[in-house]
Amino acid sequence: MTKTWNIYLSGEIHTDWREQIISGASDRGLPVIFSSPVTHHESSDDCGVAILGAEPDKFWHDHKGAQVNAIRTRTLIGQSDIVVVRFGEKYKQWNAAFDAGFASALNKPVIVMHGPDHQHALKEVDAAALAVTQTPLQVVDILDYVIKGNLAGYTQ
Amino acid sequence: MTKTWNIYLSGEIHTDWREQIISGASDRGLPVIFSSPVTHHESSDDCGVAILGAEPDKFWHDHKGAQVNAIRTRTLIGQSDIVVVRFGEKYKQWNAAFDAGFASALNKPVIVMHGPDHQHALKEVDAAALAVTQTPLQVVDILDYVIKGNLAGYTQ
Amino acid sequence: MTKTWNIYLSGEIHTDWREQIISGASDRGLPVIFSSPVTHHESSDDCGVAILGAEPDKFWHDHKGAQVNAIRTRTLIGQSDIVVVRFGEKYKQWNAAFDAGFASALNKPVIVMHGPDHQHALKEVDAAALAVTQTPLQVVDILDYVIKGNLAGYTQ
Amino acid sequence: MTKTWNIYLSGEIHTDWREQIISGASDRGLPVIFSSPVTHHESSDDCGVAILGAEPDKFWHDHKGAQVNAIRTRTLIGQSDIVVVRFGEKYKQWNAAFDAGFASALNKPVIVMHGPDHQHALKEVDAAALAVTQTPLQVVDILDYVIKGNLAGYTQ
Amino acid sequence: MTKTWNIYLSGEIHTDWREQIISGASDRGLPVIFSSPVTHHESSDDCGVAILGAEPDKFWHDHKGAQVNAIRTRTLIGQSDIVVVRFGEKYKQWNAAFDAGFASALNKPVIVMHGPDHQHALKEVDAAALAVTQTPLQVVDILDYVIKGNLAGYTQ
Amino acid sequence: MTKTWNIYLSGEIHTDWREQIISGASDRGLPVIFSSPVTHHESSDDCGVAILGAEPDKFWHDHKGAQVNAIRTRTLIGQSDIVVVRFGEKYKQWNAAFDAGFASALNKPVIVMHGPDHQHALKEVDAAALAVTQTPLQVVDILDYVIKGNLAGYTQ
Amino acid sequence: MTKTWNIYLSGEIHTDWREQIISGASDRGLPVIFSSPVTHHESSDDCGVAILGAEPDKFWHDHKGAQVNAIRTRTLIGQSDIVVVRFGEKYKQWNAAFDAGFASALNKPVIVMHGPDHQHALKEVDAAALAVTQTPLQVVDILDYVIKGNLAGYTQ
Amino acid sequence: MTKTWNIYLSGEIHTDWREQIISGASDRGLPVIFSSPVTHHESSDDCGVAILGAEPDKFWHDHKGAQVNAIRTRTLIGQSDIVVVRFGEKYKQWNAAFDAGFASALNKPVIVMHGPDHQHALKEVDAAALAVTQTPLQVVDILDYVIKGNLAGYTQ
Repeated sequence: MTKTWNIYLSGEIHTDWREQIISGASDRGLPVIFSSPVTHHESSDDCGVAILGAEPDKFWHDHKGAQVNAIRTRTLIGQSDIVVVRFGEKYKQWNAAFDAGFASALNKPVIVMHGPDHQHALKEVDAAALAVTQTPLQVVDILDYVIKGNLAGYTQ
Repeated sequence: MTKTWNIYLSGEIHTDWREQIISGASDRGLPVIFSSPVTHHESSDDCGVAILGAEPDKFWHDHKGAQVNAIRTRTLIGQSDIVVVRFGEKYKQWNAAFDAGFASALNKPVIVMHGPDHQHALKEVDAAALAVTQTPLQVVDILDYVIKGNLAGYTQ
Repeated sequence: MTKTWNIYLSGEIHTDWREQIISGASDRGLPVIFSSPVTHHESSDDCGVAILGAEPDKFWHDHKGAQVNAIRTRTLIGQSDIVVVRFGEKYKQWNAAFDAGFASALNKPVIVMHGPDHQHALKEVDAAALAVTQTPLQVVDILDYVIKGNLAGYTQ
Repeated sequence: MTKTWNIYLSGEIHTDWREQIISGASDRGLPVIFSSPVTHHESSDDCGVAILGAEPDKFWHDHKGAQVNAIRTRTLIGQSDIVVVRFGEKYKQWNAAFDAGFASALNKPVIVMHGPDHQHALKEVDAAALAVTQTPLQVVDILDYVIKGNLAGYTQ
Repeated sequence: MTKTWNIYLSGEIHTDWREQIISGASDRGLPVIFSSPVTHHESSDDCGVAILGAEPDKFWHDHKGAQVNAIRTRTLIGQSDIVVVRFGEKYKQWNAAFDAGFASALNKPVIVMHGPDHQHALKEVDAAALAVTQTPLQVVDILDYVIKGNLAGYTQ
Repeated sequence: MTKTWNIYLSGEIHTDWREQIISGASDRGLPVIFSSPVTHHESSDDCGVAILGAEPDKFWHDHKGAQVNAIRTRTLIGQSDIVVVRFGEKYKQWNAAFDAGFASALNKPVIVMHGPDHQHALKEVDAAALAVTQTPLQVVDILDYVIKGNLAGYTQ
Repeated sequence: MTKTWNIYLSGEIHTDWREQIISGASDRGLPVIFSSPVTHHESSDDCGVAILGAEPDKFWHDHKGAQVNAIRTRTLIGQSDIVVVRFGEKYKQWNAAFDAGFASALNKPVIVMHGPDHQHALKEVDAAALAVTQTPLQVVDILDYVIKGNLAGYTQ
Repeated sequence: MTKTWNIYLSGEIHTDWREQIISGASDRGLPVIFSSPVTHHESSDDCGVAILGAEPDKFWHDHKGAQVNAIRTRTLIGQSDIVVVRFGEKYKQWNAAFDAGFASALNKPVIVMHGPDHQHALKEVDAAALAVTQTPLQVVDILDYVIKGNLAGYTQ
């Protein structure tokens, strides 16, 4: 029975990069289980108050929600084999950088994904990663190589 | 194969809060395994002397039992993904607070459950938790959200 | 240069047990540094809002304060050699039990101090301790023995 | 001999917030040693190539520099008692969020500082902190309280 | 799916105490996997030289064997939930005490088994254990209680 | 259900020593899962640039590839029960020695394999190992003994 | 300022081997701090009951004492750089073997000292050590070499 | 009082690279303590047998010496802030690569030093380092920058 790899997909939630990686890995038959934060934006923002009671102060509204989300995210990052962190074109995305730092301190191999525009601003994050990618396909290629040893043009 | 979450249910043993959480989680189809201390009060008090021999001094009677119980509780807390700690209306319940501290030092996400009367006295415990609840239903809702991303009114 | 021992004194803040231990240790010439939570009750309750801004909701008032106090207490417990936890006659004192659990999970030797009335209720905490005492003098005697090997009636 | 606290000051480098905290702590006579990343912007960007040789590709220019800086930053964060992370008004500041995540995973108490505009975007970072501040004076007040137990209006 | 408990049985190899525990646990239907050192005495002594080549010096003969055995024993102890250590009537059995110390430092719950004659000599080992037993039946009773909550005379 | 042992096979990639161990273990019916670095030489050298883009500078070509390989190797070493490291007749094989050091610091039992010519040069590596072998058969014999307790001439 | 080495001297308490090592190290001017268990036999046996109250049952008499001693021994072993464990000619000395196992699991370098008669019985302990000595002078020679690089006949 | 940095200098022992780094750091007034393996070649080879008794078999001669050296090297690497590993022109130097792997697994920042000829063979080691240098002066420049923030041409 071969090892199943746990891959945590952190970061940007407005494009379909997760789906591309998941379907790409499925097409290659990789033994992987993907996990991620809750990517439903409104749920993620409101989960704390929806379950635990409303807060008039937005700070505590956010605090409650972020802590409930942390139950999921810290657990899954802590149990993953590889953490992929994508930075999209927009927004601050500090939670993505936070996850990258968190994963690094736990010695998880980190794969970063972002466009060339963010290169300088992300240099500390990139320097802590074992691979810096731009596309979901590159992540799939890395997983295929790391897990099964496949490399197009070499091993087939 | 999705991850199975191990949930430890610590604390008060005189109401049916554990059963409510367990049946609630079952109704939602959550992939969870619950564990808990031995909740049979007399067994828990007497297990040490019943198995290892009677003690005339109540201190050692208690000591033997508490150490045998610790074989179970520390192992299960140490292997859990989430620790839920409930403080009931009555009794000192120092073992519940001990478990909360123990789980915190192990970086386990802690969910606390207690009524509003205990809020001030439990402020240090609450401050170490990622969620402070009052009812079993809230715990089930958190598990449903954390594990499956479900949030009533949002994702359905 | 002999080792200096760091001793954290957790728990009850309404009697002078800390002062008794500190002066007892000083009389014996023990190389110890004592630390403790902030024991000024009102400061401890209000530090969060006094520094970071008022909260209309008592829960967040308490939360802010407890988290600021945790910066101190978790750091000092984590760096101590021995943790002494005293349970007084009154109040819930869940923070004391929390500290005992926290220290136990960090493998700190724990010395508990409490009167005989609390014996049964504290059995789990006692079972995790390496010594269960009733008086400050006993704690001083333990420190004197553990650190310098002194035992009245034996080594003098 | 009282404990000396090591405080790491991470984040924004374009205002004098570090100097304000350092001088404030000095005025209070706090036993602290502050450390920080190299805050000279050009040095920080170019240290890799200046010492180890030029790189025609900006990515590797940045990579070399970020890794040399990491020798300093990860070591100092790893040895600090408290990590303060400030997010300024401008720029992405992903390294600040990375440091906050890194420190959190190492169980370092984190104090965050930022203006109200960033509250929602920083909710995950704030939720991992033990204090969320807006001004250097608040950080000094926290250090004064945490280290010496001083709280203006209470203990003087 | 309930948890399967891994129980390591260390120590004396000249009586059938392991078989008694294993069959007792089987009779109770406990979800346990037992492991142990290689208990075939001659194999255990000679495994090093039999596989890796003879040694004229008995010290290196023993050294090679003990290191090969350590591959097994340290791995299994490190992955066990509970470590049972039995001291028999005869021999030095320093390896049993070594295993008890090794397991203690790894925070494994230790159950010791020995006759009353060894009580004083084993006081440090006993003091590090969570249960001190005399018979295999007591170990089975503890496992039954710890794993399933069964306690004869109480829960049936 | 008996434990499955994870065995990582590090080092030389130009002879069939891995296949010999794998088929030997299979013949014995050992419950083992073997893992290894990618042993396709060209893939291993080029995986970084093939997936992430070409580099004109050979140093960064190598760097990218080595970091992608590290995602695989550090993960598998970190999750293995035993690490076998073989040094062949030729080449520097510093990666093999690196893996041995890495595994040692993680407390993994290390089995080294090399010919007698390398004995003095490998003395530090050998001294950190629990067995020093010369042939794949010896490794299979050790696994058979460690996992099943089989030792030819003794237990059959 | 050169490093001061902390050396814990565990085991036999009936001969002057500790004094020989301490004076030998002093003669060589080694920067070392030695620590040890309390070696006053009666104090060590009775410290628990002398401080915490008498016990009619010898088991609890021993238990109390052993736990008080553990406050000292586990702390000092945990903070030492090197652990020396001596097995004398007589007695069971299971606490010495326990300490060796405890130190090994903490990755402390262990130096064992014993006569040739105990070689076979101590093979597991010896196999976990980095040096097996017979005399205090050999321990001093090792410390002199390890700390200062001195080796008689070579470096002078 | 500023932090003193502990720098371990591992690897090649036939040139004066250590002296160059040490004197360079001294010229810059850096608060550093350097440590290293014993660099006296014959002592390092013979320390085991010289202290613990001769061995007719060269393997055990080497084994004894390598284990005594490990008392020093593993302790000092484990307590260092930065590990510098130099690979010289000649010899296998597997111990240097072993140290690099050992330090990496302990999360120590590693600085590698070697000539361009070794680049491909050392790619895995380089990929685990935070800086790859060729000269002692570069190491001194890195230490000066990392510790004091000095960078020639920028900060003066």
